[in-house]
Amino acid sequence: MNKNIHTFLGCDANYEESEMVLFGAPYDGTTSYRPGTRFASAAIRNESYGIETFSPYQEKDLTDYQIFDGGDLELPFGDPVRPLSLIEEFTANVLKDGKFPLMIGGEHLVTLGAMRTVVKQYPDVHIIHFDAHADLREDYLGVKLSHATVMRRCHELVGDNKIYQFGIRSGDREEFLFGNEHVTTCRFDFHTLDAVVEELERKQVPVYLTVDLDVLDPSVFPGTGTPEAGGATFTQLFDALQKVTRLKVVAADMNELSPIYDQSGASTALACKLLREMMLMLMK
Amino acid sequence: MNKNIHTFLGCDANYEESEMVLFGAPYDGTTSYRPGTRFASAAIRNESYGIETFSPYQEKDLTDYQIFDGGDLELPFGDPVRPLSLIEEFTANVLKDGKFPLMIGGEHLVTLGAMRTVVKQYPDVHIIHFDAHADLREDYLGVKLSHATVMRRCHELVGDNKIYQFGIRSGDREEFLFGNEHVTTCRFDFHTLDAVVEELERKQVPVYLTVDLDVLDPSVFPGTGTPEAGGATFTQLFDALQKVTRLKVVAADMNELSPIYDQSGASTALACKLLREMMLMLMK
Amino acid sequence: MNKNIHTFLGCDANYEESEMVLFGAPYDGTTSYRPGTRFASAAIRNESYGIETFSPYQEKDLTDYQIFDGGDLELPFGDPVRPLSLIEEFTANVLKDGKFPLMIGGEHLVTLGAMRTVVKQYPDVHIIHFDAHADLREDYLGVKLSHATVMRRCHELVGDNKIYQFGIRSGDREEFLFGNEHVTTCRFDFHTLDAVVEELERKQVPVYLTVDLDVLDPSVFPGTGTPEAGGATFTQLFDALQKVTRLKVVAADMNELSPIYDQSGASTALACKLLREMMLMLMK
Amino acid sequence: MNKNIHTFLGCDANYEESEMVLFGAPYDGTTSYRPGTRFASAAIRNESYGIETFSPYQEKDLTDYQIFDGGDLELPFGDPVRPLSLIEEFTANVLKDGKFPLMIGGEHLVTLGAMRTVVKQYPDVHIIHFDAHADLREDYLGVKLSHATVMRRCHELVGDNKIYQFGIRSGDREEFLFGNEHVTTCRFDFHTLDAVVEELERKQVPVYLTVDLDVLDPSVFPGTGTPEAGGATFTQLFDALQKVTRLKVVAADMNELSPIYDQSGASTALACKLLREMMLMLMK
Amino acid sequence: MNKNIHTFLGCDANYEESEMVLFGAPYDGTTSYRPGTRFASAAIRNESYGIETFSPYQEKDLTDYQIFDGGDLELPFGDPVRPLSLIEEFTANVLKDGKFPLMIGGEHLVTLGAMRTVVKQYPDVHIIHFDAHADLREDYLGVKLSHATVMRRCHELVGDNKIYQFGIRSGDREEFLFGNEHVTTCRFDFHTLDAVVEELERKQVPVYLTVDLDVLDPSVFPGTGTPEAGGATFTQLFDALQKVTRLKVVAADMNELSPIYDQSGASTALACKLLREMMLMLMK
Amino acid sequence: MNKNIHTFLGCDANYEESEMVLFGAPYDGTTSYRPGTRFASAAIRNESYGIETFSPYQEKDLTDYQIFDGGDLELPFGDPVRPLSLIEEFTANVLKDGKFPLMIGGEHLVTLGAMRTVVKQYPDVHIIHFDAHADLREDYLGVKLSHATVMRRCHELVGDNKIYQFGIRSGDREEFLFGNEHVTTCRFDFHTLDAVVEELERKQVPVYLTVDLDVLDPSVFPGTGTPEAGGATFTQLFDALQKVTRLKVVAADMNELSPIYDQSGASTALACKLLREMMLMLMK
Repeated sequence: MNKNIHTFLGCDANYEESEMVLFGAPYDGTTSYRPGTRFASAAIRNESYGIETFSPYQEKDLTDYQIFDGGDLELPFGDPVRPLSLIEEFTANVLKDGKFPLMIGGEHLVTLGAMRTVVKQYPDVHIIHFDAHADLREDYLGVKLSHATVMRRCHELVGDNKIYQFGIRSGDREEFLFGNEHVTTCRFDFHTLDAVVEELERKQVPVYLTVDLDVLDPSVFPGTGTPEAGGATFTQLFDALQKVTRLKVVAADMNELSPIYDQSGASTALACKLLREMMLMLMK
Repeated sequence: MNKNIHTFLGCDANYEESEMVLFGAPYDGTTSYRPGTRFASAAIRNESYGIETFSPYQEKDLTDYQIFDGGDLELPFGDPVRPLSLIEEFTANVLKDGKFPLMIGGEHLVTLGAMRTVVKQYPDVHIIHFDAHADLREDYLGVKLSHATVMRRCHELVGDNKIYQFGIRSGDREEFLFGNEHVTTCRFDFHTLDAVVEELERKQVPVYLTVDLDVLDPSVFPGTGTPEAGGATFTQLFDALQKVTRLKVVAADMNELSPIYDQSGASTALACKLLREMMLMLMK
Repeated sequence: MNKNIHTFLGCDANYEESEMVLFGAPYDGTTSYRPGTRFASAAIRNESYGIETFSPYQEKDLTDYQIFDGGDLELPFGDPVRPLSLIEEFTANVLKDGKFPLMIGGEHLVTLGAMRTVVKQYPDVHIIHFDAHADLREDYLGVKLSHATVMRRCHELVGDNKIYQFGIRSGDREEFLFGNEHVTTCRFDFHTLDAVVEELERKQVPVYLTVDLDVLDPSVFPGTGTPEAGGATFTQLFDALQKVTRLKVVAADMNELSPIYDQSGASTALACKLLREMMLMLMK
Repeated sequence: MNKNIHTFLGCDANYEESEMVLFGAPYDGTTSYRPGTRFASAAIRNESYGIETFSPYQEKDLTDYQIFDGGDLELPFGDPVRPLSLIEEFTANVLKDGKFPLMIGGEHLVTLGAMRTVVKQYPDVHIIHFDAHADLREDYLGVKLSHATVMRRCHELVGDNKIYQFGIRSGDREEFLFGNEHVTTCRFDFHTLDAVVEELERKQVPVYLTVDLDVLDPSVFPGTGTPEAGGATFTQLFDALQKVTRLKVVAADMNELSPIYDQSGASTALACKLLREMMLMLMK
Repeated sequence: MNKNIHTFLGCDANYEESEMVLFGAPYDGTTSYRPGTRFASAAIRNESYGIETFSPYQEKDLTDYQIFDGGDLELPFGDPVRPLSLIEEFTANVLKDGKFPLMIGGEHLVTLGAMRTVVKQYPDVHIIHFDAHADLREDYLGVKLSHATVMRRCHELVGDNKIYQFGIRSGDREEFLFGNEHVTTCRFDFHTLDAVVEELERKQVPVYLTVDLDVLDPSVFPGTGTPEAGGATFTQLFDALQKVTRLKVVAADMNELSPIYDQSGASTALACKLLREMMLMLMK
Repeated sequence: MNKNIHTFLGCDANYEESEMVLFGAPYDGTTSYRPGTRFASAAIRNESYGIETFSPYQEKDLTDYQIFDGGDLELPFGDPVRPLSLIEEFTANVLKDGKFPLMIGGEHLVTLGAMRTVVKQYPDVHIIHFDAHADLREDYLGVKLSHATVMRRCHELVGDNKIYQFGIRSGDREEFLFGNEHVTTCRFDFHTLDAVVEELERKQVPVYLTVDLDVLDPSVFPGTGTPEAGGATFTQLFDALQKVTRLKVVAADMNELSPIYDQSGASTALACKLLREMMLMLMK
C-alpha cells in the first residue's frame, strides 16, 4: 500500500516526465482587508474531484497530458521577504528543468516571487494582468511589499509599457495616473484584448500571465477578499484566456480565491474548472 | 380547528378536484459529491410564502388553478431500488387519475422512477432534459443506478433519438461520445431549442420535461451539489421553458436544489418562482 | 487624542460645511418575510473601507466633496409611527439647512418618513422608484404602514402619475391593477427610463429617488430579505442612475440591504460602491 | 389522498380529542438587537423529525398522549397591539375548551398576549420565568410593549411577589432595583428553585411557565438573538423543569429560539427535545 | 521532487513498518436525517495541521510511533452492500498483516464492515460503544442496513451480552426494550464504565471500540448530523477512553463527524485532537 | 450635529478625564493557521450594544467610570516590526499619561508591543498569561516574531520565573521542556492560581495580564483561529480574573477573538461581556 497521494484532479505525472508543474503558494500575509487566500490551493485540490478531466469546450482531457502537482510550498507568514524568496527559488528550478510553472496563490503578491526569476530567464517578458484592482500603489501604509503594490514592483522589474491590465475597475487616483504613464490599462473589461494579443503575437515576446480571479464579477466569484461589482462573466474570462494563450506564455498564476467567503463552494468549483481549462490551453 | 396544512403557496385544491399533482421525492442517496437535495421539497414549500401567487410575466395567478400538493413521499435512503419503486407507483396513480404529475427532487435519479411509468402509458414519449451534466454514464464506480447515469437508464427505456439535452457543459469523454450516437445534445445553452420544439410540435409526440436546476449558472443558483460555471440566466431558462411548454408535456420534474449550500436563500427563492411559472405554463 | 469617529469612507466633512448629509435609518420592524435590513447602515459604514474614494467610472473622488455622515438615527422597533416621525424630522432639518439628504435604510417603509417632509417642501415632487416589488398594497394583513404598502402611501402624498417604477417583477394582481391606473410601471427592467427622464427633464420637476436594492438580480445582490430572480446587473443599475441623476434630484435613499444573508460580503461591498457612485453623481 | 399535514413530531391528535394545544406565535417585531425568532416555530416543526417520540429520561412516549398542533397564528409585523390580541384570543379559546395552551414564540413579548387571558381565568396566577434577561424595563426607547419590558407588563397584570425569575444575568441597574422590590429574582442559576416550588406547591396556586431559552448557556444554545454567557446546561434546565412541572401549571410557553443564528442546527434540535420533554412533563 | 503526500499529522510511516493503519471510510448513504459524514476523513486530515503531534495529557508524541495513513477507501454511494464489503476487505488485510486498524467514518454503519472481519479473527470480541443513539432498530423504513440499525446487526454477529453502550440518550421504545434484553446500556453518561472495564479486563476478552462522536454534547461537538443535547464533555470522553484503552482493543473506529455543520471548525479540531489522543492511547 | 462617534458601550470619556484607555490592535499578520483576529476590535465595538453597562456580578456600572476608547491603531500587515512599534509607542503614551492601557488584539503577538514599554516602566513586571497554547517556540518556520513565539520573546524581556501560564493544553515537546525550566505553567486549568496570586500579592510586584481567549473551551468560544478542546467555562475564567485583578495590574490585553468563525455571534458577545467585567474589575 502506498502513502496517500493528493493532487489536483488528473495531475498524476511524476516530476521528471511532466511538462507542467502546478504548485500552491499559500501566502496572504499582507492582505489588508479580508485574509483567506492561503486556503485556496488546498481547497482547489480537494474540490477538483467534483469536476471532470474532460473539457467539452476544448475537446481535450487532462489525462492526455503530463502535469505534476508539487503540492504547496511551506511559507511562513508575517514578513513577505522569505515567502517571496521561496517562490522565486521554486519557480527558478521548474524553469531550469524546462517545465511550465503554474502557481496557485495566495494573495496577488506571490506573483512578484515568480516574476523575479522569470524576468531573469526572459528579460523581454511582458505581463498580461487580469484583475479588478490596479495594484499599482507605490506603498501601502508605508509598506513596499503588498498585494496592493505588486504590479508597481513588477513594473520595476520589466519597465514601461510591458504590463497590460484588463478588467481594472478599482484603484486610487494616483494608481490610475501612474498607470496612464507606465502601463497599458483596459478599464472594466477586455475590449482592447484583441489588439494587444495581435501586437504581442507579432512581437513574439514571452508572456507572463497573472489572473487575479476578482476580475470576475462577484456574482460568479464571491469567494474573494475584496469583491468588486461590475466584473466579467465566466464566459468572458474564458474567451479572454483563449486569446492570451495563443501567445508564447512562459509561466502563469491564478490567485485571490478565498474559499471561506463563498460557502456555496461555487467560487472554488469555478477556480477548479478554470484551472483545468487554463492547463489544457497552455499545454500545446 | 383543523390540523396544520402545509402546501406550496396557492396549491390548495383537494386531490379529487385537482388537475395537477405536486409532490416531493426527497432522495439523494447516490449523490457522489455533495448531498443535500433531500431537503429541497420541504424548503420550497416553506419558502414559497416569500413569493406571490401572481405572475407578472404570464398575467396568471395560481389561485385560478386547481393544484394539489401531496407532500413528500416517504423514501428510505441507501439502496435506490425501493425509492424508485415508490416514485413509480405514485406517479402511476396520478397519471391513472388523469392528472399531471409534477415532481420535485431530490437528486436527478428520481426522474427514472417517474419515467418508468410514463413510458408505459406513453410509449412514444420524448424527453426534454435541461442540465449542466450529461448524466449518460454506463455506471458510476460500478453502480448502475446513480444520479450520474440517469439519462443512460432513461435511454434504455425510450431508445435512440428520443432524448434532447440542453445546457450540457460537463461530462467525461465517453458520455459525450455516447451522446453523439444516441441522444441529441445542445452544449452550453439552448441555441437549438427552437428547431427541436418545432420538430416535436410537428410530430405531436408526448414529452417528459426534466429540469436539473444546475443548468442555471451558479451565480443565479449556487444552491446545488455540483455548481458548474458557464450556465444559463434565469431569463434564458424561463424563455426556454416557455417554448417547451407549448408541446404536449405529460409529466415533469424539477430537481437538484440543495438549499443548504446557498445560505442567502436566493436559490430556493428562484426554485419557488420557477415552479410557480412552470405550473402556470403547464396548466393550459 | 480624539474620540473614535466612524463614518462612511471619505465622508469627513463637518455638518456646517457639508453639502450632503448621509444618515442611516435602521428600521425593519414591518418586514414580513426575513428581517435584517436594520444592520445595513452599520455594515455599509464598516465595509466602506474595503473600497476606494476614487471612481474610475466618473473620474471623481469622494475626498473632493463635502459630505457629512450623521450616523444612524436611534429608532425603536415595533410600531412604525415613531420611527417614521424621527426620520421625517431629521430629513426636514437637513432640507431646511439647504443640504441634500441621502438616507440608508432599513426596510423600504423608511422612504415614507422622508417623503412626508420632501412633499411639503417640494409639492410637485415626482418619485423615481427602482425595485423588484411594486409595494402598492392597500394594506398587509390589515396593517397600513408596511414595507409592502410604502408606494401606496407615497401615492397618497403625491397623487396620480407622479410615481415611476422600474424593474418591478413581483406583486399581487391588485397591485398591478392599481399601478395601471395610478402610477407608471416599467416591468422587469429600465426600457422606458430614457423617455421618462426626458419627460421629467423637460418638466423641470423635483425628483425623489428611492432605490430598493432588490431591483438588482439576486446573483449580484443576494443580501436582501426577498431575493427575486430576473433582476438588473450592476452595470444596468449604474447606467440607470446616471440617467436619473441628470434630473433635479432633491433627496434620495438606498434601502433593503440585509447583510446577514450574504456571508460573502459581496452585497454589502456592492452597496458601498453604489453609494459612492450615487454620491458622486448627486454632488454636481 | 389527503392534503399535506405538518405538525410537530407525534402531535397527531384532532383538536376535539386533544388535551394540549401546541401553537406558534411567530412575532419578533420589537426585537431590538437581532431579529429572527419569527422562524422558530416553523423550524421546530420541521426539525422535530430528527428526534424520537420516546423519552429515555421519563420513559414516556408522545404517541401515548393526545396533543393537537394548531400551526402558527398569522400575525402582522410592526405594531405589536394586534399580534398580542390575536394571541390572547387564541389562548382564551384553548383555555375555554379545557385544554392546555403551549405556545412557541417568537420573541418574549408574546407571553403578554397569553398572560392577559390566563390572568382573567386564574386571577391568582403566579409566573415562573426562566431567562437570562430580567425584561423588567418600564419602557424601551419610549416604547411600552417590547421584549425588554414584557415582565414589567406582566407584573402590572399579576401584582407584586407573583413573578419568580431564575437564571437572570443581564439587565440595567433600574431593572434589578425594580426587581428587588416587586419580583423574586434568582440570579445566574436555579439555586432557590427548590424553595420556591415547595412554597407554591403548598399554596396550590396556578402557575404560568415561561421559558426564554437564552437562560441556557450560549454553548448549548447559540441560536438566539442576545446570547449571554454564564447560563445553564441542558441538564440543569431539564432538572429545573422537572421541579416546576410538579406544580399546577395552567399554560406555558417557550420562546426566543432564533434558528438562523445557529447553522449547526443544534439549538433547534435542543428546542425540539426540550419541547418533547416539557410536553411529557405537563401531560400528567 | 515527490508527489504531494497528504496524511494525518505525524502519520508518516510506510505501510510495512507501521503498527497502526489509519483509513477513512467516507460513506453516508443511509443517513436518514442530515448527511455529510462523508467529508469527515478528508476534513480531519486537512485540519490536523492545526494541532500538535505532542500530547501534554499523555506526555507522548505521534512522531515516536509508526502509523500509516492509507487515505480514504473509494466507496460508491447508494446501496451499502458494496461499501461494507470494501471496508471488510481492507480491514481484513490490515489485521492479517498484524497491524491495528483505526477507521474514520462516515456514518456509523461503516462499523459493520469492520466488525464482520474482526469477529472472524476474534470470535469472542466484545464491543464498547459510545454513542448518543442506541442504533438498535430492527429496520428503518423497511431497510436492514442503516446507521440506525448498525448495533442490531452487530448484535447478530456477536450475540447477547457482548455489546456495552454508554452515553445513550435517544432511541425509540422498542430499541430500549431490545437493549434491556440483549445488550448492556449505560444511559446518558459513563457511570458504569469502571465496572465494565474491570469485568472485561478480568475476562481478558478482545474489544472493538466504536466511538460515535455524537456521544459528546452538541456544545462541544455541533458538527454532526443529529445533535442530541445532554451529552459528554471532552474531558469526560477523554477519561472514558483512557479507561477503555487499558483493555485488549483489537480495532477501533471514530465516526459521525459532519464537518459542514460546524462552520467554526471546532468540531473537526476536536476530532483531530481526540484521534491523536486515541492513537497515543492505543499504541502501547 | 456632531460626527458619528463609535466606541465600546459606555466608554464615553474624553482622553484627558479618563483613567483607562481602551484601544484595538487589529493585526494578525503572522497567524499561521486561520487568520481573522484583525476583525475583533471592530466587532467588539459594534456588538457591545447588545449587552448592558451594568454588571449584576459586580453590582457596578460602566457609566460610573471614566474610560476612553481610542479606536483602532492603523497597522500595516505583513512584516510585524512596524505594527509592534506602533503598539509600543501608543502604550507608552498612555502609561506616560498615568492611564491604564487595555488593548484588544489581534493575534497574541500584539502583547509583545505593549510589554516592550511596560517592562521599561516596570522592570520587575510579572506576566499572568491565560491561554490554551504555550506560545514558547523559539521560532516558527524560521520566523522569530510570531503568535507562536510571543511568550518566548516576552521571556527574553522579563527573564526567568516571571511568567505564569494557566490553562495551557497545547504545544510541542520543546515548548513544554522550555517552560519547565523558565516559566511557571499550570496545565489545563487554573488549579494553582490561588497560590500564585497569594505569592504575587505578597511580593507586591506589578503585573501584566494577557488573556488569550482560546483559554476558554471552544464550546463557549468557538470564534477563534485554533480552537482547542478541554478549556475553561466562562465562569471559571471570570473567577480567575477576579483573583488576578486583586493584584497590582498595570496593563492588560485580551486577544485572539476571530469573529468570523462564530456566526452565531456568541463568541463576540462573550468577549464584550468579559471586557466589561475586566474593565469593572480593573477600575478600582
